[in-house]
Amino acid sequence: MILRLITVVALACSALILGACGAKVAMDADPKWAIAIHAGAGVIPKTASPAEIAEHEAALNKALNMGIERLSRGDSALDVCEAVVRILEDDPHFNAGKGAAFNEQGKHELDAAAMMDGATQRAGAVAAVRTVKNPISLARLVMERTPHILLIADGAEAFADTVKVERVPNEYFSTPKRREMLDEVLRERANKKADATPPADPRNRFATVGCVVMQRGTLAAATSTGGLTGKRFGRVGDSPIIGAGTYANATCAVSCTGTGEQFMRHTVARDVAARMELAGESVDAAARHMIFKVLQPDDGGLIAVSRQGDISMPFSSEGMFRAAADWRGLRVVKIWE
Amino acid sequence: MILRLITVVALACSALILGACGAKVAMDADPKWAIAIHAGAGVIPKTASPAEIAEHEAALNKALNMGIERLSRGDSALDVCEAVVRILEDDPHFNAGKGAAFNEQGKHELDAAAMMDGATQRAGAVAAVRTVKNPISLARLVMERTPHILLIADGAEAFADTVKVERVPNEYFSTPKRREMLDEVLRERANKKADATPPADPRNRFATVGCVVMQRGTLAAATSTGGLTGKRFGRVGDSPIIGAGTYANATCAVSCTGTGEQFMRHTVARDVAARMELAGESVDAAARHMIFKVLQPDDGGLIAVSRQGDISMPFSSEGMFRAAADWRGLRVVKIWE
Repeated sequence: MILRLITVVALACSALILGACGAKVAMDADPKWAIAIHAGAGVIPKTASPAEIAEHEAALNKALNMGIERLSRGDSALDVCEAVVRILEDDPHFNAGKGAAFNEQGKHELDAAAMMDGATQRAGAVAAVRTVKNPISLARLVMERTPHILLIADGAEAFADTVKVERVPNEYFSTPKRREMLDEVLRERANKKADATPPADPRNRFATVGCVVMQRGTLAAATSTGGLTGKRFGRVGDSPIIGAGTYANATCAVSCTGTGEQFMRHTVARDVAARMELAGESVDAAARHMIFKVLQPDDGGLIAVSRQGDISMPFSSEGMFRAAADWRGLRVVKIWE
Repeated sequence: MILRLITVVALACSALILGACGAKVAMDADPKWAIAIHAGAGVIPKTASPAEIAEHEAALNKALNMGIERLSRGDSALDVCEAVVRILEDDPHFNAGKGAAFNEQGKHELDAAAMMDGATQRAGAVAAVRTVKNPISLARLVMERTPHILLIADGAEAFADTVKVERVPNEYFSTPKRREMLDEVLRERANKKADATPPADPRNRFATVGCVVMQRGTLAAATSTGGLTGKRFGRVGDSPIIGAGTYANATCAVSCTGTGEQFMRHTVARDVAARMELAGESVDAAARHMIFKVLQPDDGGLIAVSRQGDISMPFSSEGMFRAAADWRGLRVVKIWE
């Protein structure tokens, strides 16, 4: 009797503690669905106009609503991830697809990856594609139609020629806002005579979109990006690298946004899952450890969902465009802390 | 007294057990240096002529001797890794640099990565380079001269134009043996009408070179490859992916060879270190777990060295070109079990 009482108190305490950390403890024996979305850790400033803030929130709400609707009607984790990322790619507010960053040559090179759990941990990714309207869909086709995981540059374009994906001229991705950002980065660089200094504006460093989904215990992750503004031609960041910016297995699904090289050298997306599997951490403890203990302050953030449907969305940047929902009634759309 | 006896017996037993597994227990309080080399898990058949076997062993001995000599005189882990991989790249017997596999277009696209431990876990990698004689040296320059980790294709070539690396025409990498292998793969593929079937000959699937080094507690890893024979234009495997085919941090250094996609989806190189850090496994237990429990039979192998100088070289393929040595007098050069 006393033992049972202690157990109940201990459970209540841990629920409280985890709750305070922003995690949710799965008490439901039959987790139905959960979804988290990010659109980059390089957010608009808090001083942005109410109209600009509303526009970004509306874009996040649109993607989240579509995800919720499709998950509620039973669509697969992978289908929902792809559909949500396509919406964000098509939205000019975010650095993926339409609205992608310019590289140093004034062109767009886009990267994307998709991954899902299952017996084979299937994954597909593309890097430096230039004419595919929705890189996430090409990444999925690499996963489904080839024995490979990563196709790049001209090889990825050649693969696109053999499958059904919408093509666009490279200028389709351009927006005036991103052009201004490139000009700013090139000006900064000319003054400093080096490309080693990261751009001052976080929107030039941290913009990516991603989605992680749990649908009845199956997990999937998807990430898509235009990369760094003013990036060196041929530079590939963490988004299309399995284990760095994108990861999904039977434990959790993760999508990252931030200083790509930092997420690559610390295999951040894989390590969230590894800490859960090998050190018994919760998804929130593991995700927070990576962002706050392994990475440097201001390196970025991530979204993660566990097999039980618990969601974590930590970030060390000023903000992160993010949204989440689950079958238990959670619904969040946020930009800053 | 009895306790001390039990401790001694237990230590002796574990040394015996680990010894049987191929691991070495570090008893030395001041580990000086250790090196392991692989030149691919796609080895020549046991029925090869004595002359062919001797040629391959001589090539491994040459690389190993150079590594030992430079480590003995105090050269850095990274310098030795790069120098050893350059020797293997220049050797036409192995699928990296000269002697690289042909892709489906009859061209060569080479990938390489280098990584070392330290405060920043520095890493550099290149994928799909076509005119750089020693891709490993270009990977190191990405690490040292840019804020990035991975440069690919035309972007990597453009970077090569700005640094001091030897350039060669693409045909430099061609050898008659690799041309025969391409012909064989294309014949197999024409018969089966699909590129999903892996080539029958393991030499067409598993060829890569790599080196891991510990020099007075500092670790480095390097991997270089011509990729799969008959690979799709633009396909990138695990070698240049940090955490998949190449990894080094303060715990261990790892270089892999095998079915690249398998090593990518299971982040094999990172997971060896993660199992040591998070589950307290030895380098040998962690490496063997990845090869024999996580990967499929015949997926390939890896080499790993811990900060203490313990070496593990497990493989599930028929053989793996490999060599190892340490300051305690270990010296191994082997092709099969």
